[in-house]
Amino acid sequence: MVSEAEARDIYARYIHFDGLNIANFSREIFEAWKAGGITGVSCTCGIWENFRGAIANVVQWKKWFEEHSDLIVQAHTVADIRQAKKDGKTAVLLSWQNTAGIEDQLDYLRVFRDLGVRKMQLTYNTQNYSGAGYTEPRDSGLTGFGQEVVTEMAKLGIVCDLSHVGPQTSRDVIEFAPEGKPPCFSHILPGGMLDHPRNKTDELIKLIGSKGGFVGLSQFGPHMKKGNDSTIDDYVEALDYVIGLVGEDLVGIGSDASEGHGRPSDFMAWCNKDKGYARQLTPWGSQKVVKPLGPLAQRAKLAEAMARRGWSEDKMRKVLGENWLNYLEKIFER
Amino acid sequence: MVSEAEARDIYARYIHFDGLNIANFSREIFEAWKAGGITGVSCTCGIWENFRGAIANVVQWKKWFEEHSDLIVQAHTVADIRQAKKDGKTAVLLSWQNTAGIEDQLDYLRVFRDLGVRKMQLTYNTQNYSGAGYTEPRDSGLTGFGQEVVTEMAKLGIVCDLSHVGPQTSRDVIEFAPEGKPPCFSHILPGGMLDHPRNKTDELIKLIGSKGGFVGLSQFGPHMKKGNDSTIDDYVEALDYVIGLVGEDLVGIGSDASEGHGRPSDFMAWCNKDKGYARQLTPWGSQKVVKPLGPLAQRAKLAEAMARRGWSEDKMRKVLGENWLNYLEKIFER
Repeated sequence: MVSEAEARDIYARYIHFDGLNIANFSREIFEAWKAGGITGVSCTCGIWENFRGAIANVVQWKKWFEEHSDLIVQAHTVADIRQAKKDGKTAVLLSWQNTAGIEDQLDYLRVFRDLGVRKMQLTYNTQNYSGAGYTEPRDSGLTGFGQEVVTEMAKLGIVCDLSHVGPQTSRDVIEFAPEGKPPCFSHILPGGMLDHPRNKTDELIKLIGSKGGFVGLSQFGPHMKKGNDSTIDDYVEALDYVIGLVGEDLVGIGSDASEGHGRPSDFMAWCNKDKGYARQLTPWGSQKVVKPLGPLAQRAKLAEAMARRGWSEDKMRKVLGENWLNYLEKIFER
Repeated sequence: MVSEAEARDIYARYIHFDGLNIANFSREIFEAWKAGGITGVSCTCGIWENFRGAIANVVQWKKWFEEHSDLIVQAHTVADIRQAKKDGKTAVLLSWQNTAGIEDQLDYLRVFRDLGVRKMQLTYNTQNYSGAGYTEPRDSGLTGFGQEVVTEMAKLGIVCDLSHVGPQTSRDVIEFAPEGKPPCFSHILPGGMLDHPRNKTDELIKLIGSKGGFVGLSQFGPHMKKGNDSTIDDYVEALDYVIGLVGEDLVGIGSDASEGHGRPSDFMAWCNKDKGYARQLTPWGSQKVVKPLGPLAQRAKLAEAMARRGWSEDKMRKVLGENWLNYLEKIFER
């Protein structure tokens, strides 16, 4: 049995990779990552933005990497994340929650890959050229263009994320993706614990696992079994639930931390409208949402909760970070 | 019984509106319209173009309206088409075969409406934000964004065309469109005469007719019962087939004339690739395609064929143009 004190030590020694942050990025957040011992973070830098908007977001990050080089560094490879651990910095993997940034141009995938956007969700909540988000009246499945996008992403070594993608489109991508380049659910919760269209069914989770795909767990109270009463221990229970479906090598953290944004906030209102301005898609952004992992600076509490649940050091090491890194390595290598 | 000589006189007296031209537009084509006695034409000025490309196409047309004002005039209203008849000119209704030109901005519908693009096909062959084209592996149906597009088009008085749209998306739009603002199939052939995914089933044709929607008939040999052996008389038979489904007030011509483009041509190759450059969608563009209506300058032969089939003067008048004009009036008025 690992004690809680030992858990904090384990947490400090190993790499912690968080598969989804959508914080109100600033020096305060970068300091919170450092205080929280977070080695690597997949940071959302594109949702509804078209090509120019997505480029502007990348430029902002490049400036931040210069201005805050004492705290953060851009990750283009898994080696960059391991180096950040040695340097006591946080490695940032630029990521999209939508492929809106390529507009209708397959070649723009290469542009953004070269700029370091190495993880892209196929679509965010609604329909785009490639497939359907989970809020659509019907699910198009993976479109013809989407097949080209998935093929090109695999060639370029870009992670394909299906978290907010509809169930039919998710299934199609999992089955269509080239062998060895499986997609991931970077930040989801299991539908087997709470039935909700944003959650993924046992069947889909098992299917993605069967291809070597990855499952990162988010911490969105209203989508968890106990709703906003959920605690960090309930979060670790959810991890174990998904580990029960796909084994302990394909599961990790995708906290969806949105620290620094108020609720309600203009940013959340923008996220929650199709294309950032059209109809509202979900009630979120204004309703109460408990995120049981707590503040970024206190992420070590997650290791304590794992210890309380009787996890071994090796299981902690894998789920906190090594699993994500192994998966990313598999997708990045070409 | 109308004689063929009388048919030519009838053709000359009444308005002929062609619901779809995709010719290689030039003064030669404008002269062919005049020689052919074509009063009004819906001209494709957007397929895969994004906002800037679609604006450039509109600008080109505005220049043509100035340069060739002896032959053509822009139609913003049905009155403009009737005036063109009096003036011996051809009225051009700028039209899109895809909503790619609005990119992801609903407000751009208003921009193009004000520029005179008064007829837009929701999508061309493939998936876009609004719905699925007929070549997709699955049909998304009308998406959430598509519902907003259809609602806005109806408000702005823009015709919604479903010719190349998938069957589920077509059905959804017909059922979703506001009362009194039904969509059209501007250039299709009946699936009841030849089963083909580009053709529309009897059921869909009846459904659009039940809402007061419109059906224009195209003349694409390979999609007709006798294939490339089809004649102008077979075309009139197809008109009668569709009239049997929706009555003689909702049917007209949508010739899809592509005069001036070679086969193969760079333009046809561009049309036949998703987004103009991605995967090829159909074999067309290189294979032989007979268009039984013949050259634009000989369009009066259509009236002769109607006469051979025993059509009355009134039926000819309606199907040659008045039906289209009544339908356009219904959509344009606000």
